[in-house]
Amino acid sequence: MQNRRTERGTFFPPFWKMDSHYVLVEFSKEFDLPAAEEIRIYAEGKYNVKINGKMLHGTPDKVKLQKGKQKINVKVYNQGNVPALYVAGNTVTTDSDWNVTYEDKEWIDETGKASDQSGTTYVKAGKWNFDEPTVRPSAFKLPVKPKQALSQEKQGKGLLVDFGKNTFGFLTLHKLVGTGRLNIYYGESREEALSTKTSETIDLLEVHKNQQPQDSTLDLSKAFRFVYLEPEGTVKFDQVSMQYEYLPVADRGFFRSSDNELNKIWDVAKYTMELTTREFFIDGIKRDRWIWSGDAYQSYAMNYYLGFDSESVKRTILALRGKEPTISHINTIMDYTFYWFLSIADYYRYTGDKEFIAGIYPRMKSLMQFCLDRRNSDGLMKGLAGDWVFIDWAEGLSKQGEVSFEQLLLCRSLETMAMCADLVGEPTDNRHYQQEAKQLKDKLFAYYWNDQKKAFAHSRIDGKQTDNVTRYSNMFAIFFNYLNEQQQAGVKANVLLNDQVQQITTPYMRYYELEALCELGEKDYVMKEMKDYWGGMLKLGATTFWEEFNPAKKGAEHYAMYGRDFGKSLCHSWGASPIYLLGKYYLGVQPTAAGYAQYEIRPYLASLEWMEGKVPTPLGEIELYVSKNKIKIKSPIGTGKLKLQSKTVPRVKQGQVKHISGNDYELVLEKGIAYEVDYKN
Amino acid sequence: MQNRRTERGTFFPPFWKMDSHYVLVEFSKEFDLPAAEEIRIYAEGKYNVKINGKMLHGTPDKVKLQKGKQKINVKVYNQGNVPALYVAGNTVTTDSDWNVTYEDKEWIDETGKASDQSGTTYVKAGKWNFDEPTVRPSAFKLPVKPKQALSQEKQGKGLLVDFGKNTFGFLTLHKLVGTGRLNIYYGESREEALSTKTSETIDLLEVHKNQQPQDSTLDLSKAFRFVYLEPEGTVKFDQVSMQYEYLPVADRGFFRSSDNELNKIWDVAKYTMELTTREFFIDGIKRDRWIWSGDAYQSYAMNYYLGFDSESVKRTILALRGKEPTISHINTIMDYTFYWFLSIADYYRYTGDKEFIAGIYPRMKSLMQFCLDRRNSDGLMKGLAGDWVFIDWAEGLSKQGEVSFEQLLLCRSLETMAMCADLVGEPTDNRHYQQEAKQLKDKLFAYYWNDQKKAFAHSRIDGKQTDNVTRYSNMFAIFFNYLNEQQQAGVKANVLLNDQVQQITTPYMRYYELEALCELGEKDYVMKEMKDYWGGMLKLGATTFWEEFNPAKKGAEHYAMYGRDFGKSLCHSWGASPIYLLGKYYLGVQPTAAGYAQYEIRPYLASLEWMEGKVPTPLGEIELYVSKNKIKIKSPIGTGKLKLQSKTVPRVKQGQVKHISGNDYELVLEKGIAYEVDYKN
Repeated sequence: MQNRRTERGTFFPPFWKMDSHYVLVEFSKEFDLPAAEEIRIYAEGKYNVKINGKMLHGTPDKVKLQKGKQKINVKVYNQGNVPALYVAGNTVTTDSDWNVTYEDKEWIDETGKASDQSGTTYVKAGKWNFDEPTVRPSAFKLPVKPKQALSQEKQGKGLLVDFGKNTFGFLTLHKLVGTGRLNIYYGESREEALSTKTSETIDLLEVHKNQQPQDSTLDLSKAFRFVYLEPEGTVKFDQVSMQYEYLPVADRGFFRSSDNELNKIWDVAKYTMELTTREFFIDGIKRDRWIWSGDAYQSYAMNYYLGFDSESVKRTILALRGKEPTISHINTIMDYTFYWFLSIADYYRYTGDKEFIAGIYPRMKSLMQFCLDRRNSDGLMKGLAGDWVFIDWAEGLSKQGEVSFEQLLLCRSLETMAMCADLVGEPTDNRHYQQEAKQLKDKLFAYYWNDQKKAFAHSRIDGKQTDNVTRYSNMFAIFFNYLNEQQQAGVKANVLLNDQVQQITTPYMRYYELEALCELGEKDYVMKEMKDYWGGMLKLGATTFWEEFNPAKKGAEHYAMYGRDFGKSLCHSWGASPIYLLGKYYLGVQPTAAGYAQYEIRPYLASLEWMEGKVPTPLGEIELYVSKNKIKIKSPIGTGKLKLQSKTVPRVKQGQVKHISGNDYELVLEKGIAYEVDYKN
Repeated sequence: MQNRRTERGTFFPPFWKMDSHYVLVEFSKEFDLPAAEEIRIYAEGKYNVKINGKMLHGTPDKVKLQKGKQKINVKVYNQGNVPALYVAGNTVTTDSDWNVTYEDKEWIDETGKASDQSGTTYVKAGKWNFDEPTVRPSAFKLPVKPKQALSQEKQGKGLLVDFGKNTFGFLTLHKLVGTGRLNIYYGESREEALSTKTSETIDLLEVHKNQQPQDSTLDLSKAFRFVYLEPEGTVKFDQVSMQYEYLPVADRGFFRSSDNELNKIWDVAKYTMELTTREFFIDGIKRDRWIWSGDAYQSYAMNYYLGFDSESVKRTILALRGKEPTISHINTIMDYTFYWFLSIADYYRYTGDKEFIAGIYPRMKSLMQFCLDRRNSDGLMKGLAGDWVFIDWAEGLSKQGEVSFEQLLLCRSLETMAMCADLVGEPTDNRHYQQEAKQLKDKLFAYYWNDQKKAFAHSRIDGKQTDNVTRYSNMFAIFFNYLNEQQQAGVKANVLLNDQVQQITTPYMRYYELEALCELGEKDYVMKEMKDYWGGMLKLGATTFWEEFNPAKKGAEHYAMYGRDFGKSLCHSWGASPIYLLGKYYLGVQPTAAGYAQYEIRPYLASLEWMEGKVPTPLGEIELYVSKNKIKIKSPIGTGKLKLQSKTVPRVKQGQVKHISGNDYELVLEKGIAYEVDYKN
């Protein structure tokens, strides 16, 4: 999937290690059958079958099993695709309770006796869509649906087609006929499609003696709003449509308010997420079409307020980690390794899925060990050869020395390790990681906190704090809750609300900046910023949100990046963060115990007259409506607390409002009950 | 290749981890071109091309390069087969001097500037047969040549075909016609082919409406001397032949003597090696058709006295090691891990190939670390869960506790590490391994040497030496040169020549036993044993040498093993050791400095009147003829020493004979000179 990026028609795979599957695996399970039954066996790959340790002749596709205890082992070999198995019987059927191993170690001695101490590591088999003989996992493709173009117009020697908004899929040429080349230039903008020399994505389609006009759909999906087609020779076609390629995700999260611009922002953010949530959460649809840990970390968070599609989260986390040995940071980026740890903490918080933690824990440990082994003699991590210290796309941002931001993320990652060690019942690990986290946190303050500047310094070079202060460590320290009140106030005044500190221009870091401000109670300010920044893109005609946005730029300047005229991705998942901010800080819903066993709702209208929405949980959606004098809430899960401010004592039909202090009130929410609160904001 | 074993028609792959290739790799090289040239590019896989860091459009198969410095990078992706590249130009061509990596880490920053500290590890690309566009490495198959059957006779409802000797290849059915099933039973013995219920290898061929008689060759090569074919339905065929499948290896080593039985032994051993030297050195042709480190270790040694096919040695060593992470012993067997180290020491000794050592050294280090990490608190290795302690196929042989044999092999492996560390210029590693080896050797004597028994004890359980004495550690200690003269004499009398100590019945361990006896000067005894043991198999009609031979058994009992009537492999590489023994201890040729820079020749006729032979070296064959009064020698390489015993002063036409003491004389041999020595034995 990461091999589908092209640039100017050139195959453009990632630059990091690409792992492949285990080519030879053994699936097994024991059953206690109430009666004899016949099973059918379908595998993707060459296979053999053992029943109760005895290998059957040939490659059986039907096997009769006797009543009682039956152990089934099927060994599958497949070099080109992932070995997969589907067994269908009355009782016996493949599910996620089968064991799987890539090393069964079942040796025998010279008498034929099998080893009694094989020491094989078994894990639970991955279960997916292989439950019909014909549904071969290797043949999986995302579904498509046809979409028509909005308009087509002649331009020079060719035709410019506009699909009305940025989209993704396979182009269809209707009634294609003739001989020659059809030059196809894709554009996320009109300018890009028409810039035949510099558009990022092209197809040079050779048409060979098409005598009968026929509809032809291209092989590789592409990102575009505009397509410019220039035929050569006798090539002709009638019109152009597309096959929209998408991952079906349930429509769960929702937001609507009295502010139409904000609604539009939410809708465009949702569509941006729809386009970038695919086989995995990818960064952007035009570029890179790769799985980046830092980008995915934000996609997961948005997903918890939109589709709550845990399968996509899990498979992206797994794909990012890859296989042992661990020889590089995830995507080669140090910060991206840390986001990977953080993403697991978040996943557990939103879903409560301990089983996934148990499965991934060994690979968390080895990745953390990789990190700890790369610390220098001061116990800090700096970029070694082959480590990309990314942080953000920002002009002149120093990556030299030991950057405070990286230590901060490592510290949080260690805390995540401690939490997960506890979850999987490893108290020794738990103590170890707690201790490492504490030591590092102490260093973080000792080495980087600057009492004059009331902020963390950006970095440390040759054992000395540098003069530079940037937003990154400071804003993350806010929502990591690492600062006391005084320090928080310092960071807010001297960094976050200080225009002298280098501004952030990527939606990527805007996400964290605005989150930090929300945590500091600056939600009115953030609402305004959100409308300015994302509203700013909408005013420029954005139909999906961008990789980077600098309001100071003009016209087609906006599309340039990486030294290329149209290098910028105009549909980038990290652009969709209003979904997260609106869900978490305005609708105000977030879990306070894993998987929404407990949660709080702290609605905040800011400049809005009213808002309503749905926030997905593992057991359905929390629905709420909030206006200046009424709140309606219903939750399918857990125990919640509605926290509200009211100038008068709120009145409720269900439940009991508790006065906290001043204008602060609290209402305990039980699942399944529709609450209605009359109050005065 | 290891997936071609079948048992009763069932796919039977190995039980250890099967590694796959890196699916995405980048090849690169810099050239300084004297003139502009056009290159042609052929790849197995999807690829892109960069010239001087600039990616070219599409998938170019021709590229024009300018005069001067040109850097070429080609990135190839191939999931199902190994990514491979062939570039053909005047100056520019793919060879083993290209760099390759699976992780190029060429990230760019937001301005498009490439990283200046990628930290990528490059290794030299493997070079093989891809030097014509059409010779695709993935399509590689061993060559075949047709062979006729010796006889065919009717048997019951079918036909029994005899190919005269054990062989390997694809069966061809001539003028096959009709509809129904053709049951094919292969046998390394006549009994096996006719035992349709228990023969190990079968093909149940479905013949569908063959109306025109046609020749049909089966898909999968098999091992057999006899084939029994039982047609069902209307299936008929005319006769049966085969396509003999083989690795072309130069015919280099040679042995002939006055003893025809010994000559036959050498010929059959040679044929056994021919059959088991294939894509890799495998154990046996019927079973397992897998690559086993302990078996291969012996094949390498025989190969140095036969084909001297270093490519086969290298690719087998590489295949056995596999990829990181190291999670199990090689083939899951502890001793087989150690033989892997020893095989590298031997390879260097015979070939002097430092380049291979440099390439494999990192994987030697990590495998050794895996071993050292598995030692217990006494610093000894015992079988942990998942470790197979094999030693030998021998009834009742204990694998419990800390077996002395495993410590002995580990000690020798550590010495090999020290030697290789020195070769690759790692003095710190060298000291480390030397120290570890010394400590372990001290323990070996402290824990296992028994002064009463004048031998190493077999094992140690719960911190105590066991009573058991076996041949394994004791005989290896001889040719590892770990014993002083007194200890050697003790081992010889109390173990090697003591019938009370459990006898060895596998040619596998016979190899080492006889080698130890040769080292102790018992070459007359060994000659007799060799003729008895291997001659014993010949008397039973062996056409290739067996996995195991117990002279006490009768008739078809010989074919049984692993609790199965025909479980035994009758063509097993470890059966071919007379090649090694005759070359090293009777022709008496062995290198004394790496790659035959120095060597010695110590001919020993034993019961022979005369013998002659060729021993291959990196630069051709050392040829010699030895009778009781004449020795003729010519060597293409290095400086040798002919060591001989003579009752009279030897006379030479070339060179100068030096008297050592008593009957011992020495003649220095320079390359290219034909020496002739008249002496009296």
